[in-house]
Amino acid sequence: MAPVTAFGEEMYELVERLYPLCRSITGDGVRATLEIVGEYIPLHVHEVPTGTQVLDWTVPQEWNIRDAYVADAAGRRVVDFRASSLHVLGYSVPVSATMPLAELREHLHTLPDHPSWVPYRTSYYRPEWGFCLAQETLDALPDGEYEVRIDSTLADGHLTYAEHVVPGQVADEVIVSCHVCHPSLANDNLAGIAVATFLARTLAEQRPYYTYRFLFAPGTIGAITWLALNAERVERVKHGLVLACAGDPGQLTYKRSRRGDAEIDRVLRHVLAASERPHRVVGFTPYGYDERQFCSPGFDLGVGSLTRTPYAGYPEYHTSADDLDFVSPQAMADTLAVCREAFGVLDRNRRYLNLSPYGEPQLGRRGLYDSLGGRSDAKQAQMAMLWVLNLSDGEHSLLDVAERSGLPFDTVAVAADALHGAGLLKA
Amino acid sequence: MAPVTAFGEEMYELVERLYPLCRSITGDGVRATLEIVGEYIPLHVHEVPTGTQVLDWTVPQEWNIRDAYVADAAGRRVVDFRASSLHVLGYSVPVSATMPLAELREHLHTLPDHPSWVPYRTSYYRPEWGFCLAQETLDALPDGEYEVRIDSTLADGHLTYAEHVVPGQVADEVIVSCHVCHPSLANDNLAGIAVATFLARTLAEQRPYYTYRFLFAPGTIGAITWLALNAERVERVKHGLVLACAGDPGQLTYKRSRRGDAEIDRVLRHVLAASERPHRVVGFTPYGYDERQFCSPGFDLGVGSLTRTPYAGYPEYHTSADDLDFVSPQAMADTLAVCREAFGVLDRNRRYLNLSPYGEPQLGRRGLYDSLGGRSDAKQAQMAMLWVLNLSDGEHSLLDVAERSGLPFDTVAVAADALHGAGLLKA
Amino acid sequence: MAPVTAFGEEMYELVERLYPLCRSITGDGVRATLEIVGEYIPLHVHEVPTGTQVLDWTVPQEWNIRDAYVADAAGRRVVDFRASSLHVLGYSVPVSATMPLAELREHLHTLPDHPSWVPYRTSYYRPEWGFCLAQETLDALPDGEYEVRIDSTLADGHLTYAEHVVPGQVADEVIVSCHVCHPSLANDNLAGIAVATFLARTLAEQRPYYTYRFLFAPGTIGAITWLALNAERVERVKHGLVLACAGDPGQLTYKRSRRGDAEIDRVLRHVLAASERPHRVVGFTPYGYDERQFCSPGFDLGVGSLTRTPYAGYPEYHTSADDLDFVSPQAMADTLAVCREAFGVLDRNRRYLNLSPYGEPQLGRRGLYDSLGGRSDAKQAQMAMLWVLNLSDGEHSLLDVAERSGLPFDTVAVAADALHGAGLLKA
Repeated sequence: MAPVTAFGEEMYELVERLYPLCRSITGDGVRATLEIVGEYIPLHVHEVPTGTQVLDWTVPQEWNIRDAYVADAAGRRVVDFRASSLHVLGYSVPVSATMPLAELREHLHTLPDHPSWVPYRTSYYRPEWGFCLAQETLDALPDGEYEVRIDSTLADGHLTYAEHVVPGQVADEVIVSCHVCHPSLANDNLAGIAVATFLARTLAEQRPYYTYRFLFAPGTIGAITWLALNAERVERVKHGLVLACAGDPGQLTYKRSRRGDAEIDRVLRHVLAASERPHRVVGFTPYGYDERQFCSPGFDLGVGSLTRTPYAGYPEYHTSADDLDFVSPQAMADTLAVCREAFGVLDRNRRYLNLSPYGEPQLGRRGLYDSLGGRSDAKQAQMAMLWVLNLSDGEHSLLDVAERSGLPFDTVAVAADALHGAGLLKA
Repeated sequence: MAPVTAFGEEMYELVERLYPLCRSITGDGVRATLEIVGEYIPLHVHEVPTGTQVLDWTVPQEWNIRDAYVADAAGRRVVDFRASSLHVLGYSVPVSATMPLAELREHLHTLPDHPSWVPYRTSYYRPEWGFCLAQETLDALPDGEYEVRIDSTLADGHLTYAEHVVPGQVADEVIVSCHVCHPSLANDNLAGIAVATFLARTLAEQRPYYTYRFLFAPGTIGAITWLALNAERVERVKHGLVLACAGDPGQLTYKRSRRGDAEIDRVLRHVLAASERPHRVVGFTPYGYDERQFCSPGFDLGVGSLTRTPYAGYPEYHTSADDLDFVSPQAMADTLAVCREAFGVLDRNRRYLNLSPYGEPQLGRRGLYDSLGGRSDAKQAQMAMLWVLNLSDGEHSLLDVAERSGLPFDTVAVAADALHGAGLLKA
Repeated sequence: MAPVTAFGEEMYELVERLYPLCRSITGDGVRATLEIVGEYIPLHVHEVPTGTQVLDWTVPQEWNIRDAYVADAAGRRVVDFRASSLHVLGYSVPVSATMPLAELREHLHTLPDHPSWVPYRTSYYRPEWGFCLAQETLDALPDGEYEVRIDSTLADGHLTYAEHVVPGQVADEVIVSCHVCHPSLANDNLAGIAVATFLARTLAEQRPYYTYRFLFAPGTIGAITWLALNAERVERVKHGLVLACAGDPGQLTYKRSRRGDAEIDRVLRHVLAASERPHRVVGFTPYGYDERQFCSPGFDLGVGSLTRTPYAGYPEYHTSADDLDFVSPQAMADTLAVCREAFGVLDRNRRYLNLSPYGEPQLGRRGLYDSLGGRSDAKQAQMAMLWVLNLSDGEHSLLDVAERSGLPFDTVAVAADALHGAGLLKA
């Protein structure tokens, strides 16, 4: 298998390709995005018609946009969708009008505290039109008449999402979810899409224990749609991870599932602590990304969220400053590495039953124990076997053994394999 | 409603009126006390006959006292009950005799460490007579003969206690108890009586959820009598608070119920912490005030105790120095304010059930959510709604939501009301 | 009863007598050891035949040794079993040969880091012969031919262990176990044997509540043999303690049972903390002494381990430096004192039921409570009675009462006796 660091550049290239597209919760931008991702891993793309009832929600009309601008009296575009997909309020209704600046201002969104940045704004569920621009651009506009034009359509169509499945040895599933609805924002969430894509690719190279399902869907309505249409599959989801903001320079942040002590929570905490990376583990909140839906009380799935700097935690968040310079191959490679380590632990974390639980079994005659007695340095591998035997009462998992013994998970898993091979453990 | 601070002066005036009376566990001093309290809030006064069996105890004979003194050879009163009700040992049997100082000394109680203070002493259950006086008074007495006289009666009669009930929407009760048996001691417990009285008065101005029962009864035997004679009502008591030492300059101290994590315990801890007052929360001990009885293992009620400086925690405790200067309107107003905040939380603390628990309900179409997306500053009210929805699984109360979210309880309760109004929650 | 400190010298003398014997997991060295211990306390000696199946193990052949040496060309013994039992690899098969030093080296064990010390080594389950010697002795040996001779026998015979029982009021048992298989090592485990012996002797002077069973058996195979042959008795074992390394100058170390919160764990933690000795309480690990067997998951007994410096925690461990200078009468007396305190608590730790649980019973009329009221200094004995009454709901033990109240266990136990005597508690 290629070294993980090698994927950093490839992930960055994928982000670069996706960056210019104008994504929203529906429309051709999402389709184009999934088409590019589909070049890396096979995707099953789903189209869900407008009007479909999904839990408490309804799939909205599909939004597409071809052009949008504000032009001055000289016909010069002073705000231009062609320069950045952020310039138009997401889901803007079409408009074609001429109006004085004073009237236009009510439809303009800026960030006075960051006068050179363009904000990202949407109005999915209330018909609205608008433009987003830098405060300094706005300040430079002379009074007068402006032509405003948004060449968009809102019409019955579809909501688009995609799945990629890495088949496992069992039907129990691990879901990895990332939102694909944000336009030209690199960290949120092209980096998440890129890490998910390469995580899927590396998982496919092995034959994992769990079945891993990767979900590329628009935020909120996409996750709700998937949950509504996959009731049977939801029951098979044992663990999950929402990936977002995966490429910024900040330290990794794991946000626990609503349960707080789900297996995924313990795995991420363990792997991050064992890795000695600077990191943070924070409690669940019902805000952020699609963990909000997976962890709603009716589902209450063991789904956590991994980001670098979390949701709304950096000034560049939801602005034009979340650009290609804000993310790096190194950061994405680091996020990917932790995901792989975590799934490596999760995938091997089993509860065994010691079949010889009364006293210690005689490991020596099975070739598992040093024959020379009296030395004080018990080898780590032997300690791992004693710990696995002692705690394998059906209650404790290998992760429990690793945490209680202080031994590396890998050493514990290797010891369990040896004991299982010797017929001393039942899976 | 009048601002709470306004009650400080009124409570202090009530303390001043009650201060001169000679209270004990029975007798006319208790009756006079309840008569005065009855001018502020209607009271139901109970008279329980001597000899009544109450749990492991028997209601004792009634004690009344008209006069008591020690007079010197010149007939001058050197210890005089008319100066302070503390001068006579509570429940003293009558005596009328002349005796030398040496013999009299065996019946005199002083505080050598505080030579100018008069101690408070009683002998309820062993027939005894005695006087309490300042050490410096005793030191100044010349040898010689003294006339001692206690004009008291111990006879079959009654134990007197009173109740005031603020009716609620449900029959479940909150009991607020304060002892009325201490003579001229201001903090212990006239301040407690005053705070309970005004707490009752302000509660009556609303229509609370719970029924609030205020108990004005002598310590130990009074609480035991109430518990013995109100078996049915005891079952309805869901929460309670014993009020004592409510007016001294020290910080507030909440003593947990025996359970340690009863709802009243969590409410007081939350309110005191949220108020940012200096305060202490201490564990239950089977000593102190009538929480001893309410928290005996057979009842094990969720009853805590609120004081300022706790039981026996200040040198003036049970001495003549616990006088009108030792308590203040400000301190009593502060104690009252915390009681009102606490009962405000307790009374609104409910477990709801989210009726739309699969995914988030679409708050936007119900007018409960901002329509403009992309901004990073979720409003506190919206966060509160998301938290209430997420945790309303029948297990978590609004206080749980407040504590886990870090949001003010009031914001959480308002959000719950809005969601309930929108049909998204079931009470 | 003689003061505990008096036993220090006697225990040390016992260690001195046992020190020269060559013990192993079977053989006459164990028998001679038990014969000497039997002079102090009556022992029931068991002989279990070679080949007996015990759990996952088989009782091995019996090993006896008469002489062993390495002699140089001049016939001078350069390594001599008569100087120390450590010089021969435990369970060495017989050998009689002449060989060059180069060939002999493969059978020589030294400690290069401690060149003047002789290591302790064994090979119980793989046929092997060898000598242990100081590195500096080895370094001084000239090349040349050496005569090697081990006059040992490995033959069908028996595994020997002994029991001593102090009968109690109930059949429930406390097991105290110490290993008797180590040759001339003073701390590991002659000190443990000595402390166990004198602990048994002092327990026999009282009539304890529990039945105390002392087990003197070879490590691992001895405990496994006892567990295998005493299935019925194992069910009666409620608590236990493995004693080892009981005489070195280090501080006491209690290692918890696998359960972590067994009653023995709480008792030792309490007694060590209350004693204000420097000490450590550490978590269970499946390594060390025979707690490994008692705490295997099938048995999972409440058996902890008390040592001074624990297993492998000192450089002298398993070397000739663990000699008579390494242990002291004072250290053994200190270990014994803690054992006696701990069993004093364990033996009296009962759950009572308050027969008057509604309100406080009137202690005054039973002569258990001070009749003079008003004083702020409740006596410790009265507080202990209130605590015992309050917590005696069938859930809490006297140790719970001591820990929650902060009162000494002894005060609590005396209060419980008084209340029990007054008919207020049911055992």
